[in-house]
Amino acid sequence: MTNCLCYGAHEARADLTPLRIERRALRDDDVAIDIAYCGVCHTDVHFAHNDWGSTVFPCVPGHEIVGHVTAVGRAVSRYKVGDRVAVGCLVDSCQQCAACEAGEEPHCQHGTTPTYNGRDRVSGANTHGGYSQHIVVREKFVLRVPQHLDLRFTGPLLCAGITVWSPLREHNVGEGTRLAVVGLGGLGHMAVKLAVALGAEVTVVTTSPGKADDARALGAHHVLLSTDPQAMAGAVNAFDLILDTIPRKHNVNPYLMLLGRHGKLVLVGALEPLEPIHGALLARNNRSISGSLIGGLAQTQELLDFCAERQVLPQCEMIDIQDINTAFERMERNDVKYRFVIDMASLNGA
Amino acid sequence: MTNCLCYGAHEARADLTPLRIERRALRDDDVAIDIAYCGVCHTDVHFAHNDWGSTVFPCVPGHEIVGHVTAVGRAVSRYKVGDRVAVGCLVDSCQQCAACEAGEEPHCQHGTTPTYNGRDRVSGANTHGGYSQHIVVREKFVLRVPQHLDLRFTGPLLCAGITVWSPLREHNVGEGTRLAVVGLGGLGHMAVKLAVALGAEVTVVTTSPGKADDARALGAHHVLLSTDPQAMAGAVNAFDLILDTIPRKHNVNPYLMLLGRHGKLVLVGALEPLEPIHGALLARNNRSISGSLIGGLAQTQELLDFCAERQVLPQCEMIDIQDINTAFERMERNDVKYRFVIDMASLNGA
Repeated sequence: MTNCLCYGAHEARADLTPLRIERRALRDDDVAIDIAYCGVCHTDVHFAHNDWGSTVFPCVPGHEIVGHVTAVGRAVSRYKVGDRVAVGCLVDSCQQCAACEAGEEPHCQHGTTPTYNGRDRVSGANTHGGYSQHIVVREKFVLRVPQHLDLRFTGPLLCAGITVWSPLREHNVGEGTRLAVVGLGGLGHMAVKLAVALGAEVTVVTTSPGKADDARALGAHHVLLSTDPQAMAGAVNAFDLILDTIPRKHNVNPYLMLLGRHGKLVLVGALEPLEPIHGALLARNNRSISGSLIGGLAQTQELLDFCAERQVLPQCEMIDIQDINTAFERMERNDVKYRFVIDMASLNGA
Repeated sequence: MTNCLCYGAHEARADLTPLRIERRALRDDDVAIDIAYCGVCHTDVHFAHNDWGSTVFPCVPGHEIVGHVTAVGRAVSRYKVGDRVAVGCLVDSCQQCAACEAGEEPHCQHGTTPTYNGRDRVSGANTHGGYSQHIVVREKFVLRVPQHLDLRFTGPLLCAGITVWSPLREHNVGEGTRLAVVGLGGLGHMAVKLAVALGAEVTVVTTSPGKADDARALGAHHVLLSTDPQAMAGAVNAFDLILDTIPRKHNVNPYLMLLGRHGKLVLVGALEPLEPIHGALLARNNRSISGSLIGGLAQTQELLDFCAERQVLPQCEMIDIQDINTAFERMERNDVKYRFVIDMASLNGA
């Protein structure tokens, strides 16, 4: 066991403060990682605040983790000390069910082990995330950061990035795809960058006229203002795929109308009941609406490799861990372009 | 113009009564058809009653039409007098848009011309359906009834049949597909028969214990009682595809839970706002929900050919046209197994 300095919450709605936890002694297939950077996801805010009522305290958030290997268990073959590595939202799954065998670990039939607020499959202990000095993770759930990928910008790829990459790949987005991205936050801005890199024709759909310039700066070809009825009417049937990144209950019917034949709307943000969907809008054009989680490990590695090769990087604001509570407040006001990343070197001075 | 005896409604909520309309003189690409049988669809009830506020009166329903060719326009090449033919829900579309070119006439970008309560693309006149002695239809929208398909049972294939055949084919249902059919009415019973013939493992999901024997008699391998929480919990993740034939607003969340990874629920009944769908149920397993209309002409012909070859026939109750108002009442009570078909010979004695 190793003592580890972290930032975490002791109770719901409390500020995050420094605290100490134990990291487990290395198992044979474990990798110990010194954390260099950790991205800040809106899910971190929800768990720290116990918004979903399932938080085990103390809670150390963070599932966009990048750093360097400091030690490996004796059965570890893929990593050695000094390697640049990353850990995303999951640190374990059963590795035996059909989903795991298909490389779709997030859909593990026996339940996944989240990077924080999960239950370790061996010890039963609560898992703690990346707002910390170091972490110990099963080799299978450790990803390689390619040589030309800047560690500072790698974190947000592990949650925001893979959440949009997964449906882009599942629906074969590329040259000729007419894609709309609804919402321009952490997920939306990555969707635009990745889809443009894949060759799609990308439209950002937003309620905010002020985001038009930002959207174009990210590479979007068009901007559609959803508050402009005429523009929306002109875009009926205009898209093959819509990535809807709105992270809360909303009305998807106006977006469904924008889909052409066999068009698909993929929800990557809202994990709650939606406003009533009109059956006739789905029947027209045989439209569909689906959900999507993060991708599996192989697909996440594919994303890291793609981003390294194409230099597709998230737009980040670097912060010190001491600024995390302010960052949480700003995220609740949508005041971030587009992702906070904690420089974990700041923790060592805490 | 030819005078034609029909049954139709003169106003909303009135009984259907005999009336006379004019059928147009044959255009070059027209086929004149003497109607032998016409299936009765729930849509007929809705239009006769003006439930959707869009009915043009007088209204002559009927879009499950079968009969014999009595005359053809001079440009008609595929049909000759005496041929056994059928007409479904549509009698025209633009024939120029991408949807029409792809054989997806129901999604014509310029709007389809329904078989009744439509607007003829040439004359602008209101179209009248199959509760009548004869009809004149553009050759392209006339289907061939194969030699070994009994005319009496052909009608319901043209709406109820193609509505379920289309998603079964789109999702490649066959050997190994775990399919659930929700609801066992006109559409549901055809879905069971067709999916069994395609080789799928078919489960009927119903609220009525009394329908279990009927479901098995139609060929279903399993019956799942949606009112039995234990049975429903045991069927979580159990299906690849669900055809949801419930024709009204309902809660799809309990059915979504039954879908495995990348499982799809296809709505073929409800054309109104659904109860709120839970985003997390879609995210889990990357599930989707889609709508579906009838299929295109080529796919409808494929269905007729398949049903002839495999002798897959709807279960029908034959009625005289004079019984149509009683039939409508019984349909509103779900008192039909599973489709009424009008023997149009009865009209000539009206």
